[in-house]
Amino acid sequence: MNPVFATLPTTVFETMSRLARAHSAINLGQGFPDDPGPADIRQHGARALVDGWNQYPPMMGLPALREAVAAHYAAHQGLTLDPETEVMVTSGATEALAGALLALIEPGDEVVLFAPLYDAYLPLVRRAGGVPRIVTLTPPAFRLDEAALTAAFSDRTKVVVLNNPLNPSATLFGHDDLALLAKFCCRFDVTALCDEVWEHVVFDGTRHVPLMALPGMRERTVKIGSAGKIFSLTGWKVGFVMADARLMQGLAKAHQFLTFTTPPNLQEAVAYGLAKPPDWFDAMRAGYACSRDRLADGLRALGFPVLPAQATWFLNIDIAGLGLGEDLAFCEALVTRHGVAAIPVSAFYPDASVRTLVRLCFAKADATLDAALDRMSGLA
Amino acid sequence: MNPVFATLPTTVFETMSRLARAHSAINLGQGFPDDPGPADIRQHGARALVDGWNQYPPMMGLPALREAVAAHYAAHQGLTLDPETEVMVTSGATEALAGALLALIEPGDEVVLFAPLYDAYLPLVRRAGGVPRIVTLTPPAFRLDEAALTAAFSDRTKVVVLNNPLNPSATLFGHDDLALLAKFCCRFDVTALCDEVWEHVVFDGTRHVPLMALPGMRERTVKIGSAGKIFSLTGWKVGFVMADARLMQGLAKAHQFLTFTTPPNLQEAVAYGLAKPPDWFDAMRAGYACSRDRLADGLRALGFPVLPAQATWFLNIDIAGLGLGEDLAFCEALVTRHGVAAIPVSAFYPDASVRTLVRLCFAKADATLDAALDRMSGLA
Ligand SMILES: CSCCC(=O)C(=O)O
Ligand SMILES: CSCCC(=O)C(=O)O
Repeated sequence: MNPVFATLPTTVFETMSRLARAHSAINLGQGFPDDPGPADIRQHGARALVDGWNQYPPMMGLPALREAVAAHYAAHQGLTLDPETEVMVTSGATEALAGALLALIEPGDEVVLFAPLYDAYLPLVRRAGGVPRIVTLTPPAFRLDEAALTAAFSDRTKVVVLNNPLNPSATLFGHDDLALLAKFCCRFDVTALCDEVWEHVVFDGTRHVPLMALPGMRERTVKIGSAGKIFSLTGWKVGFVMADARLMQGLAKAHQFLTFTTPPNLQEAVAYGLAKPPDWFDAMRAGYACSRDRLADGLRALGFPVLPAQATWFLNIDIAGLGLGEDLAFCEALVTRHGVAAIPVSAFYPDASVRTLVRLCFAKADATLDAALDRMSGLA
Repeated sequence: MNPVFATLPTTVFETMSRLARAHSAINLGQGFPDDPGPADIRQHGARALVDGWNQYPPMMGLPALREAVAAHYAAHQGLTLDPETEVMVTSGATEALAGALLALIEPGDEVVLFAPLYDAYLPLVRRAGGVPRIVTLTPPAFRLDEAALTAAFSDRTKVVVLNNPLNPSATLFGHDDLALLAKFCCRFDVTALCDEVWEHVVFDGTRHVPLMALPGMRERTVKIGSAGKIFSLTGWKVGFVMADARLMQGLAKAHQFLTFTTPPNLQEAVAYGLAKPPDWFDAMRAGYACSRDRLADGLRALGFPVLPAQATWFLNIDIAGLGLGEDLAFCEALVTRHGVAAIPVSAFYPDASVRTLVRLCFAKADATLDAALDRMSGLA
């Protein structure tokens, strides 16, 4: 057994969802909406299953979806992408990330990552032969700073992985952060692997800026998007990769032997969805912002300090001053004894240096959020 | 860029399908049926998309599908599998294979493979850090022999990859081959990775025997199956991995970070399909056997020597004595000038030692096969 995988625990999201099922808990852990997702998109997929093509689509993705991706990102983020050579469809953002790391890294290459980090990043970097250099970002701002980047980047750096908006902190990197990172990428000739799956789920009039749009970054950025997050259909596992044609050639080679392709019926439905008008996306955001406010207000009323949440389906409470122990013990008690699943943010810090934040998913029906609040009352 | 992927050509199946589209050729290259696939299974999937769960299923797969897989292989192959711990759902057999190799291999481990080999195997082994030891099998029998295995296996051997039934040769390994291989696996403490995606597509009353069923192999075999092949729905990308619980723990860790999970609606439809009665599978085989005979008879009538095809959707012609050059040049001319796409079997031999076999896919409507024959007339 390869030691990278042999010694790995099951992902915290799966573990918490299993505990939630075992204890009939309300699952505010793993990030998924309890809504069935847009009916018209699901119906579109269903029609394609019954009337459409069910055999292998082209390895890079259905032309209709690659064109829809290019048009969508032109309209929403001002990016110019050639659908033929600069867009690829993957079986979810996870496959896109795994394939990109396997394609970009040679054994011994250094990879800069920022903690808090999604738990797939580190094992994937290690299994690809990369040597991780982790920059720790601290609450509540989670900003980049020049001294930390100077310490992390070197001539051995090949790739930097950026998640923006950042899960679990629910923060967006600002223009200063991105410009600083771009400067380091250009100076050290580094490829940026941008997990931007939360790009559309931003609140309060903020806007996500893709790192690819910064000067000098177009040719050195691999951008990853996710239909599951955009359309609240996390089970669909349809992702996209966008990159300059030269980079894409290598990425496509990894993809062709990781999954080869992605169900064509779901691809058709996603192509349909990406063409929705801007107010559809505004309404989606407004809906989640209401849910965020409901959960945040409720938690504050119960005495939990709530960190600001600008993006994603998550908010964090800080249990530091509450005498409730560390995040992991708190989450275990919360799911087993009080019937609410949440995610301990220490799971996103390889050195567990942050241990008092607890992430809760608010992408749920009002009644579900209210029931969870009810179960948490009296705890703080 | 990692050199394993950077230097790789696009897979021959994709290349030939692109050429087929560009030249409006009849595509007998890449293996897929031109049939839309079983209507009831597609409708089942469509209903699940509209009425069912569209968020993350459990990482190991829907319990209903894991139970259906265990019941199916108990009924069809006499295997006893615990659906909780010994069955995992993947995004196609390709992901299963990639994940298994990444999980099983440590850099420097030797991996025994048999040529002809599916073109994903070698880059995946290399990218996982494995050192390939290739045993060449020769037409028309494609049998294993003791001397070749003795030369290939050693104390450094960690994994052997077996594809049975074998694509592209359309042969089944017999009991003697499997017993011989099992002996080597046990002697050298080797894990067998069995790509058995063609297990149900066998003809003339032959039966596929899973390597896992041989004495000593239950605990050291990873078996891979494919709903795409079983149900003629190659675009669905639903695969299964079966292995002893101890092995499965490592395999699951790789899977959780390669794709994490597979669309739940397609999983539900596959669970429904796997419960079909035995005569459904007999009828499926009988249908493909008719198509095989139609294409084989037609090709023989045109003067092409046809090799026996016991399994898969493929048959091979041997162009050695026909003065038509080597397989690759013949296939290029066939698709660009005569409008029929086929696969040169040399693509399955890393040393290109076999260069006169051409693989044709017969999983097509009679009219399609007849039209292809028409276009090939006068060539031999
Ligand atoms: C793949 S399960 C994790 C889902 C997710 O993005 C999260 O909960 O952070
Ligand atoms: C992934 S495309 C190849 C399909 C196939 O199994 C074949 O044609 O051999």
